[in-house]
Amino acid sequence: METTKVSKKLLNRLPGYLNHLKTLPQEAENVSASAIARALGLGEVQVRKDLAKISHTGRRRTGRSREQLIRDIESYLDLSTVTKAVLVFSGKLGAALLDFTEFEKYGLQLQAGFHLHGTAEPDRTGCPVYPIGALKEYCTAHSIHIGMIAVPAESAQEACDLLIGCGIRAIWNFSSALVSAPKSVAVHNSNLTVSATALRIQLQEQQYKNM
Amino acid sequence: METTKVSKKLLNRLPGYLNHLKTLPQEAENVSASAIARALGLGEVQVRKDLAKISHTGRRRTGRSREQLIRDIESYLDLSTVTKAVLVFSGKLGAALLDFTEFEKYGLQLQAGFHLHGTAEPDRTGCPVYPIGALKEYCTAHSIHIGMIAVPAESAQEACDLLIGCGIRAIWNFSSALVSAPKSVAVHNSNLTVSATALRIQLQEQQYKNM
Repeated sequence: METTKVSKKLLNRLPGYLNHLKTLPQEAENVSASAIARALGLGEVQVRKDLAKISHTGRRRTGRSREQLIRDIESYLDLSTVTKAVLVFSGKLGAALLDFTEFEKYGLQLQAGFHLHGTAEPDRTGCPVYPIGALKEYCTAHSIHIGMIAVPAESAQEACDLLIGCGIRAIWNFSSALVSAPKSVAVHNSNLTVSATALRIQLQEQQYKNM
Repeated sequence: METTKVSKKLLNRLPGYLNHLKTLPQEAENVSASAIARALGLGEVQVRKDLAKISHTGRRRTGRSREQLIRDIESYLDLSTVTKAVLVFSGKLGAALLDFTEFEKYGLQLQAGFHLHGTAEPDRTGCPVYPIGALKEYCTAHSIHIGMIAVPAESAQEACDLLIGCGIRAIWNFSSALVSAPKSVAVHNSNLTVSATALRIQLQEQQYKNM
């Protein structure tokens, strides 16, 4: 169901470039691909290709304009458009996501959480939490298109079905279960247990290479 | 730096299969690829191929043995080996990771958290949190090979350098910064802002397809 035509690997690196460019000292007006590559431990050819793909403004002898490059990346990632999202959750991972302020910088506005089993969370400071019964009314009233899921595997399909019933068009699933959704709904999985397994396998291969 | 030879896409689906097989009612002794595909909203050919790759035990007329398939997936994912990890963090996402109990089911034992700026967290129930100054001694004493990072982008390289100085061989980076590490250290990025961007692009493509 992952059908994006934009290269996932490029997409993986762009926020890293953006962060690096933004944290450079103000006096750094120009920046070269080789300097970025060195700072981030990437290949120079790789960085050069990436930058050529997202930025069509000319290179100067001293490198690219840092300001322009920041604008080009932000425009490529379409960061000026804001997409609204809600979260169905039932634990601490979900609560942490509700407090995660970085989403907004990347065009995703997580507006509200809906607790699958609880009713209220009095001491929250981030975005509001409502009982799950209020989900449909909220999604309709606020034209929500993205639904995030952070519940245990056994409740994931229930949460997914609820969101689809509310007219959600894209699901971001943090559980370790695969959820079934109609073809018209995009599904993106961020399964931490998959990453844990991938990392362990990477570590083994790394140790083998270093032997 | 992502060099795993195991197909990432297969790895993405296996925990989903495992979860599905484990939550089937006890009386379901056999299970067919088509039933799994239906339940999880995947293509039947896909599921059939995946199962053939990880399980070499014969298929019966009524499908595969569920118990055997669970054992085959667990063995393919090498879930009996436990790899120890520590986390350098400074916020709620890190605190949620320390409480995330699913890692252990997938062979990753997150043993301790090290707060980059704080000193203690008195009301924690999950794994212990120590001040960052104790990191090196802990990693050496416990032979830790995996270091996780959940800090703001501007502190990510600092956390990474600290972990590498402690002999860590694999970094799992949850920040939105790219970190630079020696070639001998595996780096795995779980950048939530990248996923947010990928999801928004997927949603746009989905809407275009449905027009």
